[in-house]
Amino acid sequence: MRIALSTGGGDAPGLNAVIRSATLAAIRRGWEVVGIRDGFNGLMFPDHYPLGNGMVTLDYEAVRGIAHRGGTILGSTNRGNPCHFPVRQDDGTIVYEDRTDHLVALFREAGIDALVSIGGDGSLTIADRMHQAGMRVIGVPKTIDNDLDRTSVTFGFDTAVSIATELIDRVFTTATSHSRVFVVEVMGRYAGWIALHAGMAAGVHAILIPEIPFSLEPVAEMIRHRERAGSPYAVIVVAEGAAPSGGQRAVMSTSVDAAERLGGIGEQVARKLTELTGHETRTTVLGHVVRGGTPSAQDRLLGNRFGAAAVRALADGQEGVMVALHDTEVEYVPLVEAIGRLRTVPIDSDIVETARDLGICLGD
Amino acid sequence: MRIALSTGGGDAPGLNAVIRSATLAAIRRGWEVVGIRDGFNGLMFPDHYPLGNGMVTLDYEAVRGIAHRGGTILGSTNRGNPCHFPVRQDDGTIVYEDRTDHLVALFREAGIDALVSIGGDGSLTIADRMHQAGMRVIGVPKTIDNDLDRTSVTFGFDTAVSIATELIDRVFTTATSHSRVFVVEVMGRYAGWIALHAGMAAGVHAILIPEIPFSLEPVAEMIRHRERAGSPYAVIVVAEGAAPSGGQRAVMSTSVDAAERLGGIGEQVARKLTELTGHETRTTVLGHVVRGGTPSAQDRLLGNRFGAAAVRALADGQEGVMVALHDTEVEYVPLVEAIGRLRTVPIDSDIVETARDLGICLGD
Amino acid sequence: MRIALSTGGGDAPGLNAVIRSATLAAIRRGWEVVGIRDGFNGLMFPDHYPLGNGMVTLDYEAVRGIAHRGGTILGSTNRGNPCHFPVRQDDGTIVYEDRTDHLVALFREAGIDALVSIGGDGSLTIADRMHQAGMRVIGVPKTIDNDLDRTSVTFGFDTAVSIATELIDRVFTTATSHSRVFVVEVMGRYAGWIALHAGMAAGVHAILIPEIPFSLEPVAEMIRHRERAGSPYAVIVVAEGAAPSGGQRAVMSTSVDAAERLGGIGEQVARKLTELTGHETRTTVLGHVVRGGTPSAQDRLLGNRFGAAAVRALADGQEGVMVALHDTEVEYVPLVEAIGRLRTVPIDSDIVETARDLGICLGD
Amino acid sequence: MRIALSTGGGDAPGLNAVIRSATLAAIRRGWEVVGIRDGFNGLMFPDHYPLGNGMVTLDYEAVRGIAHRGGTILGSTNRGNPCHFPVRQDDGTIVYEDRTDHLVALFREAGIDALVSIGGDGSLTIADRMHQAGMRVIGVPKTIDNDLDRTSVTFGFDTAVSIATELIDRVFTTATSHSRVFVVEVMGRYAGWIALHAGMAAGVHAILIPEIPFSLEPVAEMIRHRERAGSPYAVIVVAEGAAPSGGQRAVMSTSVDAAERLGGIGEQVARKLTELTGHETRTTVLGHVVRGGTPSAQDRLLGNRFGAAAVRALADGQEGVMVALHDTEVEYVPLVEAIGRLRTVPIDSDIVETARDLGICLGD
Repeated sequence: MRIALSTGGGDAPGLNAVIRSATLAAIRRGWEVVGIRDGFNGLMFPDHYPLGNGMVTLDYEAVRGIAHRGGTILGSTNRGNPCHFPVRQDDGTIVYEDRTDHLVALFREAGIDALVSIGGDGSLTIADRMHQAGMRVIGVPKTIDNDLDRTSVTFGFDTAVSIATELIDRVFTTATSHSRVFVVEVMGRYAGWIALHAGMAAGVHAILIPEIPFSLEPVAEMIRHRERAGSPYAVIVVAEGAAPSGGQRAVMSTSVDAAERLGGIGEQVARKLTELTGHETRTTVLGHVVRGGTPSAQDRLLGNRFGAAAVRALADGQEGVMVALHDTEVEYVPLVEAIGRLRTVPIDSDIVETARDLGICLGD
Repeated sequence: MRIALSTGGGDAPGLNAVIRSATLAAIRRGWEVVGIRDGFNGLMFPDHYPLGNGMVTLDYEAVRGIAHRGGTILGSTNRGNPCHFPVRQDDGTIVYEDRTDHLVALFREAGIDALVSIGGDGSLTIADRMHQAGMRVIGVPKTIDNDLDRTSVTFGFDTAVSIATELIDRVFTTATSHSRVFVVEVMGRYAGWIALHAGMAAGVHAILIPEIPFSLEPVAEMIRHRERAGSPYAVIVVAEGAAPSGGQRAVMSTSVDAAERLGGIGEQVARKLTELTGHETRTTVLGHVVRGGTPSAQDRLLGNRFGAAAVRALADGQEGVMVALHDTEVEYVPLVEAIGRLRTVPIDSDIVETARDLGICLGD
Repeated sequence: MRIALSTGGGDAPGLNAVIRSATLAAIRRGWEVVGIRDGFNGLMFPDHYPLGNGMVTLDYEAVRGIAHRGGTILGSTNRGNPCHFPVRQDDGTIVYEDRTDHLVALFREAGIDALVSIGGDGSLTIADRMHQAGMRVIGVPKTIDNDLDRTSVTFGFDTAVSIATELIDRVFTTATSHSRVFVVEVMGRYAGWIALHAGMAAGVHAILIPEIPFSLEPVAEMIRHRERAGSPYAVIVVAEGAAPSGGQRAVMSTSVDAAERLGGIGEQVARKLTELTGHETRTTVLGHVVRGGTPSAQDRLLGNRFGAAAVRALADGQEGVMVALHDTEVEYVPLVEAIGRLRTVPIDSDIVETARDLGICLGD
Repeated sequence: MRIALSTGGGDAPGLNAVIRSATLAAIRRGWEVVGIRDGFNGLMFPDHYPLGNGMVTLDYEAVRGIAHRGGTILGSTNRGNPCHFPVRQDDGTIVYEDRTDHLVALFREAGIDALVSIGGDGSLTIADRMHQAGMRVIGVPKTIDNDLDRTSVTFGFDTAVSIATELIDRVFTTATSHSRVFVVEVMGRYAGWIALHAGMAAGVHAILIPEIPFSLEPVAEMIRHRERAGSPYAVIVVAEGAAPSGGQRAVMSTSVDAAERLGGIGEQVARKLTELTGHETRTTVLGHVVRGGTPSAQDRLLGNRFGAAAVRALADGQEGVMVALHDTEVEYVPLVEAIGRLRTVPIDSDIVETARDLGICLGD
């Protein structure tokens, strides 16, 4: 048995723990393991790897000590979706081809019996297509935003929440002692998990999330109320994808980076709050600093569990499934049921109720 | 409505978040909140509180900023179980009385309508008795060892695992570069959750837990094998309550402190491994340093959720239930079903399977 | 003896340790201690403090546990320099008055024998004026940038470097595994201490500081060289006040906040590097998140030493001096010699030499 | 030019930064660098390294990313002092030989022009002997206890103090909320730097250091006083080498490990305090957990500076000197003046004065 591992999409602490764990679990069964570099590039474009290292053998030595390190030793890519591959025509136009069959054939030629694909919704959708095209595939879910539907939690999320909380705590003390209003923008384009968890852990005064279209008037009133009560400071956490009710965001940023450059939702909220309250308001954007680096203990553990579970699934003859955590146990979910479904914060969940009970303004 | 909060038993990071959250949720409903000092001592023995502070009013000011602090602002006690209260007779013997009815009467006299009791299995058993004696009670589970049966997780556990992992990581680098064998003893008298989570996150070579009676021969063989392979070092994590198979622990320590004093299981394991392998072996006991201090983001959040959920349960007319987390949602479990039941590590769980897949020796 | 404490200017972790330490050292000598709120506002504008708390008594209870907390319990302000006080005239123009004598008289009226003034160059200049006007004053230096001339180090700097390093480490792993170029902007308007210390501790590839006017061509060449060598990623740290050689910064930001809003030097460097190399480049600005929050052990210790040393100086009959650290010991420097002098990084220091020896590009 | 690096003695975070920095600085000058494994064992006992890796080439690849890792990639040893080498005679007795000349000859044979020796007082004494025997040697000081005389600070110390402070903070909250007395034993056989720095940063109630022979009666009185004042808890930090005045320690432990096993000074202090006060007292020994692991930013920086400075010294034609930090600059000190001299805490230093000013009991 010879299996391949591939990682796709953005960074999420715990990726290397998955790679290490899957590798060790496979070696224990006498299998060979190879890692494909940069998504599937190492297999599809061997010419780009002049040293012949588009595919690397994963053995004890290759995975020693990597679980503690952020990033992925295999590299990653968002380009070149093999199911929707851009090909430039003679007339300069771009036509998209489905190269899934070609990719599956490449795996066969390389003598690879099965693939463990570690990635977000995009990567898992490709994995599902490959499975339909005859490849034995196991998916491992990865999303820093924790917004994949069929698993209770994903690795990287705990690290992101921990670091975001620590940084909001730091901003908080300055706000308190220097009588300032701070808006802290955190990741979460479609779901407010990070904003809600980190904001509640840090004890902030308002949290704006994509699931609850917001009005800034209650936030401004909260600030005014605090000023009258002798506490002229506040900390407001805004998820990247939060949006005003009945309206549109002035700038529709397509990424954290665009938000950083053009002035994201955090910046917009800050300006509007200054208008509404007259209180000087400052913005901090927590982007890449909370999604890289050493994984938390919990994310290393979860990465370990997911990686080994993927190999056990293959050993048990499963395929076309995604590894998932439900409550305290790892389970398997058909890939086809897992993809294309977002897990957002239920607005009647106990966690939202708790935010209200703590007196946190949710902008509604 | 006037409610009381009480904390009992050992330290667990997140306790103050429960107190703050329950207080804010109650104030939001227009209720009054009092905190009882030192378990129930503040109510039962007012003479010990000459300043009249056996019961303290909990308001905004009292709970400001406490969620980030370890310990409990209410104090705690393991003494004076009111259901089994030791009374010294004239002849010097001790007779145990059930003073539950008396305690419930004291609550009535103090004008308290309901109690939120935050504690471990002992405190929750008392809470159940009080409920049967007519008191409106909601229980909030607390155990650093994560070994209460009817909740998926308890606050404090994540902090303990995080700190233990960080410290094992530190020992690990010394072991590696200085060719040493280290035995690290962690908490876990009946359940190996902390040992297993922290040991796996740190990537150690052997983990001994109460659920799997151990033999040291496979551990010694692992050390010898590593020496032969040019890696003459190893890190072994031992839960406080781990015990050899077919035998008894030489010293039956009754507490972490006794273990520290008399030489706990970690010390015994280290000595025996030195005998078996000839390799000098060192021991480190992680006790109080991993159960106090600033709670992790996750434990602050969980404390917040449990505290507010307890108040919502009262607002909904519930009583005699324990707040619990199941998967991602807070639920309520009858106290009578929750008490006296230990949650140990299932030896066929995916987490134990993963430990084996990673090549970690479990002593069996 | 009755002394007052005042804190001025921006946040720097360790401020509360100074307050606590000075308070305890004064109480030990039987003195009374009061804290003035918000710089000197609590004394100058009592009407703004309707609760009468413009000046607060500092006793054991008031300073309990504060050394671990970021910010300052006394509040702070950058407004209302009493030596250069803005007064609006009838015709709407602003005239600046020197109200130092008035301020000193207010201290006398309040029965205050001496002042410990904790602040940056601005606050210390005021302190020196007050001393010349007859007030017994001891200065305690505060600058997160570590750029005050007559002390080897100031509190807050170690915390800022530690957090900045941790965050750069996190960005670094993403850069490595995702083949990205990151520009991280850190504080340091006039001096590159934070950039140099954090950048070297994190092991980055280029560091741009105010002391060395930079050209981006060598930085771009470093990136190109790394790409050719198969390492298509880099991390570049830029101090807020770094500027190109022979030219001017396109935007002269006047504060971290302005930089965040208008696109600071980090953003400009990133854009230019993308132009020069064709490599997509991302920017992260570390501002308020590294200057607030729990002080490092070293900053708490240094705050403790400075606070007590200020009181001992008063007890010894000194005045008009600033507390300073030289090598391993606290010393005293005449305020008049300490103010208005910047401590920048000597470009021939061993630390700059070391950066070059490590192969770090300094843009020259 | 071909130079060798060697590390000796116990662990100190920052060692790998020295190795990396010296390697990069040497490569920059076109030199070759080799690392000797396990002190000098890799050179003296090549038979023990069947893979021929007793000496390893240090190049870019070998030192990539190591500055962040604890331990030393070269290994270490306390055995086999070549100046005092134990040789077993035919009659079973041990005779010590001076093999310095032999070792220097081995270096010559291996084509090594100069040695950078990184170690504590023992290693530096050997380095001095080797220099006298004709070897070009530069010493780099290493002591976690910060007790080497001719340098203001050594790497590893800041990490040890930071971790110790964090752990004492954790114990402190449990002490406070659970009304306990804790004795925390920290490293420091001859000097109390770690105890004093960490204890003051954590704000403990008593600190016992080797420089101040202690009586426990004032400590007990402090505990009794706190009990009477309604604060029935205390945290006491004891340096490993602290000793009672006018007496002897009951157990003369020869190492942290012996102390852990036999009951070190912390355990003895705790027992005696229980006797004196009747208050139950618990002990925690912080040993290996504070001397390994990821170095702090400051220790990485200092390691970087020391490593590059050693190479610059060689490039400048220096030899027989030790790299040292004085105030903010690296300097060089003749090895012969640096060895055999302990740097203890001056009992009239401002830091000791500050401890007294904070009301910390020093047992005198």
